[in-house]
Amino acid sequence: MLDGHEKGTYDVGLVGLGVMGSNFALNIADHGYSVAGYNRKEDKIKYLSEIKSAHHQIGMTQDLQILCQMVKKPRTIILLIPAGDAVDSVIEELVPFLETGDLLIDSGNSHFSDTDRRNETLKKRNLLFMGMGMSGGESGARHGPSLMPGGAEEGYERIKPILEASAAQVGDSACVAYMGAGSAGHYVKMVHNGIEYGLMQLIAESYDLLKRGLGLQAEELHSVYRRWNQGVLNSYLMEITADIFRQKDDRTDRPLIDMIADQARQKGTGEWTVSDALNIQVPTPTIDAAVMMRHLSAYKEERQEAEGCLHGPDKFLKKEKEQFLNQLERALYCANIVIYAQGMALLRQASETYAYHLQPQTVARVWKGGCIIRAALLETIQSAYTADPDLINLLLAPPLTQQVETRQADWRDVVVAGVESGIAIPGLMTSLAYWDAYRSSWLPANLIMAQRDYFGSHTYQRVDMEGTFHTRWGSD
Amino acid sequence: MLDGHEKGTYDVGLVGLGVMGSNFALNIADHGYSVAGYNRKEDKIKYLSEIKSAHHQIGMTQDLQILCQMVKKPRTIILLIPAGDAVDSVIEELVPFLETGDLLIDSGNSHFSDTDRRNETLKKRNLLFMGMGMSGGESGARHGPSLMPGGAEEGYERIKPILEASAAQVGDSACVAYMGAGSAGHYVKMVHNGIEYGLMQLIAESYDLLKRGLGLQAEELHSVYRRWNQGVLNSYLMEITADIFRQKDDRTDRPLIDMIADQARQKGTGEWTVSDALNIQVPTPTIDAAVMMRHLSAYKEERQEAEGCLHGPDKFLKKEKEQFLNQLERALYCANIVIYAQGMALLRQASETYAYHLQPQTVARVWKGGCIIRAALLETIQSAYTADPDLINLLLAPPLTQQVETRQADWRDVVVAGVESGIAIPGLMTSLAYWDAYRSSWLPANLIMAQRDYFGSHTYQRVDMEGTFHTRWGSD
Repeated sequence: MLDGHEKGTYDVGLVGLGVMGSNFALNIADHGYSVAGYNRKEDKIKYLSEIKSAHHQIGMTQDLQILCQMVKKPRTIILLIPAGDAVDSVIEELVPFLETGDLLIDSGNSHFSDTDRRNETLKKRNLLFMGMGMSGGESGARHGPSLMPGGAEEGYERIKPILEASAAQVGDSACVAYMGAGSAGHYVKMVHNGIEYGLMQLIAESYDLLKRGLGLQAEELHSVYRRWNQGVLNSYLMEITADIFRQKDDRTDRPLIDMIADQARQKGTGEWTVSDALNIQVPTPTIDAAVMMRHLSAYKEERQEAEGCLHGPDKFLKKEKEQFLNQLERALYCANIVIYAQGMALLRQASETYAYHLQPQTVARVWKGGCIIRAALLETIQSAYTADPDLINLLLAPPLTQQVETRQADWRDVVVAGVESGIAIPGLMTSLAYWDAYRSSWLPANLIMAQRDYFGSHTYQRVDMEGTFHTRWGSD
Repeated sequence: MLDGHEKGTYDVGLVGLGVMGSNFALNIADHGYSVAGYNRKEDKIKYLSEIKSAHHQIGMTQDLQILCQMVKKPRTIILLIPAGDAVDSVIEELVPFLETGDLLIDSGNSHFSDTDRRNETLKKRNLLFMGMGMSGGESGARHGPSLMPGGAEEGYERIKPILEASAAQVGDSACVAYMGAGSAGHYVKMVHNGIEYGLMQLIAESYDLLKRGLGLQAEELHSVYRRWNQGVLNSYLMEITADIFRQKDDRTDRPLIDMIADQARQKGTGEWTVSDALNIQVPTPTIDAAVMMRHLSAYKEERQEAEGCLHGPDKFLKKEKEQFLNQLERALYCANIVIYAQGMALLRQASETYAYHLQPQTVARVWKGGCIIRAALLETIQSAYTADPDLINLLLAPPLTQQVETRQADWRDVVVAGVESGIAIPGLMTSLAYWDAYRSSWLPANLIMAQRDYFGSHTYQRVDMEGTFHTRWGSD
C-alpha cells in the first residue's frame, strides 16, 4: 500500500482505525492534513477506504514499520486504541522504528498512572510522549471533539495546528489546549468522565422523580427535558436525554426507553476518579454516589427480591406538576454546579499533588464544546476562573454562590420530596450535603477525634492552642 | 537476657512491644502462657519489665535470633508492629532463624493485599503465615480484643488455645474464630474499620443535629447518649460517646469536647474499605460518605471562608425536643442496620472474589465483644445469619427488615429536618438512599444505558429479550 512517493510525506500517523480512530482520521483529513493510518486488521482498513472521500489524503497500512516510513520527520503518531496492555504492546513495537524527537500521542482513555510510566520510559529513549484525553464519542471524533493533551509541551507545539483544526469550535476558539505536564491530559479527561457520571446520575434521579413520582410518560418527559435544555440546564446531556425519550422502539413501537434494562455498566473511568479522589483526599461525594448507584443497579435480582419484602412509601409525589418541574429544574442546576465544583476541586488538588500546573479557566474553556459534559454552565465557570484563577472552590465564586443561594429552597424541597416518597436520590442528596458541609466553619468532626483518642490514643488538636493532645478518657 | 533454661520454653514470641504489643503480652501471660517479647528499643523493654507482675512469664530480648531461640518449636511468633515496610523488614530478618512449620502471625493493620503477598512468599519457604485483625484498642489488647485470624488454618489450630484465652469473652464464647483462607482476617478487620467509620459519622451527625439543631450542651448530650446506650443503640461507641460529653477539660474546666478541633484524621483503613468496595463493585455509600466527611473536615480554612459568603438556613430545628430525640434514636438505628448491611454485603462479595469462604454468622459473633463496633445489634445480626447463612443481604432478614420498616417514617423525618435546617447529614442520607434503592426492583439506570449508547455506542440490554443492542439515536 506504500507508494514510493508517499514515503515521509504524511503529516500525522494514526494507529487504530476503529470507530474513534477512523472518525478522527477523517476529521483531520477534512482540514487538509494528510493521515497515515494503521490497523492490524484488514477489515478496518477496508471500511475506512470505503467511507473516506476522494479529497481525504489518507494512506493506510497494516505494517507499523511502513507507517513510520510514511510519516514526515520528526514524526507525530497518534494512538487511538483501547487503554491497557494494548497501548504498551503497540508502543513497544513502534519504538524501534522511531527516531529522537519523534512524538507519540496516546489519545485513548488510559489511566493517568500508565501515562506517567510510559512518559518516563519514552523520555529515556529520547522520544516525546503525550497523553491526550478525547471526549465527544464517535460524533465528536468525526466532527470536532474536545481534546485534552498533556505531557511533552514541545510536542504540543508541533501538533497544535492539526489539533486546533480538528477540535470542536466554540465561538472563535478551538476546544483544545495544552493542559499541563506529565499525565495532566489524561487526568483532566478522567475527571471529565467523573463529572459526566455525576451529571448522568442527577438526570436519572430527575427522571425517576418524574416517572414514578409524578407518573410522566416518555412523550411528556421528552417535552420536559427539551424545555430544560432551553434554559439554565442547557447542555449536551439534556439534549440527548430529550432525544432519548422521543425514540420509538422498532420492535414494539413503544418508547424505546421503556424497553431498556435498568442495569448500568461502565468502563471504569468513574471508579478511577473516585479512587484517586480518595487517594488525594478530595471530597467528591456526588461522583461517589453516581458510581455507587451504577454498581447497585447491577444487583437486579436482589432488588427484585427486596421489593417484595422491604416496604416503604408508595413513591408517589403529592406535588403540583408545573411547580415541581420548576423546583426540580432549579434543584438540578444547583446539584450540577456542585458536581463541577467537586471535579474542579479534585483537579486543583491533583494539579498540586502531581505538579500538572493546570489552568482551571482553560479546562473550562476546552470543555465548552465537543465533549459529553459541555453545558451552558461552563461559560459561567470559565468566567469565574478568568476573574479569579486562584479561586479555591467554584462555590466561592460570587455568581455561582448566588445562583445556588437563590435556588436552594427549591433544591431542599425536591430532596424532601424524594425522602418522603421513598425514591432514592443520592446524587441530589450528597450534592446538598456537600454544599451544607462546605459552607460550615464548624463540623462535628471534633467528636470523631475524641472517639479516636478514646479508643486508640490517636490524639487530637485543640481549638485554643497549638499542639497534639491526648486524654485519659472516662477516668474522672 | 536469655538464661540457658529459657531456651525453647516460651509458648509464643511477640515482636513489637509498643502499647498494643505490651498489652497483648500481658493479656496472654495473664492466662498462664509464657511470652518471649522482642523490641529493638530498650525503653519499651524496660517499660514492660516495670509494669508486668511477678506471675507473668514474660522474657524479653532485643535480638531477633535470641527471640527465635526462646520460643518452643514449632515456633509461633506474633508481630504487632506498624503496617507497611516494617512488617516486611522484620519478616526478612526473622526468616533465617525459623524452621519448616514455624508460624508467623501479623496482627497489625496490614492491607490485605500485602498479607496475600507475604503469604505467597512465606509458603515458598515452608513457613506458616497468618494475617490476624485485632480490634479493641489498647484496652482490648490488654483485657480481651476481638481477633480475626485468617490464613494458614494449620497454624490457627496451634495458636487457638492462646487466642481463645486472650480474646474478649461474650457469654461462653471467645471473640475469635478462624475467618478464612489467605488474607481473610485482615480483610474482615478492614471492613470492621469501614463500618466503624460509618457508625462514627452517624453519631457525629446526630451530635450536630442535637448541638446546632436543638442547642443541646455537653451535659445534656451526655444524658442523651447514655440513655440511648441503654436501648437498641447499645454499643461501645455509644458508651464512649456518652463518656466523652462528660469529660471536663483540665485547662479551662469547660467540656473537653468543645475544646477539640473539628478536623478529623485517619489512618487509611476507611479509605481501603471504600477503595476495595469500588474495585469489587459493592455499594457502600454510607462508608464512602464517612470517609468523604473526614476529608472535608480537613478543609478548615476553606470552610471558614465559605461560611462567610455561602448562606443557607439557620441550622435550627423547629422540633419538640423529646419527640425529636426519639425520632433520632430510631433514625440512627435504621442507619446503623444499613451500615452493617453494606459491610456484610462487601464481605460476601469479597469472600467470593478472593475465595475466603467467610462465615457471616462467625464474623458477627467475633464482633460481638472486644472490638470498636461491638453492639447489641450484632446479636440480631448473628441470629439472622445463623437462621440463614446464605442470606444475600442483611436487609432481607425478616427481623431486620421489620425493625427498619417500623422506624423508617422517623428516619425520613430526621433526614428532612437535616435538609431543611441546612445541617449536613450525608451518612443518614446515603443510608436512606441505599435502603430505598435496594428495595426498588426498577431503577432509572435504563436512562444511563440509553445515554451511554447514544454518545458512545456502548450498547444496552432489553427488558423483553436476551442480547446486546445498539440504536442509532436521534435519527428518526
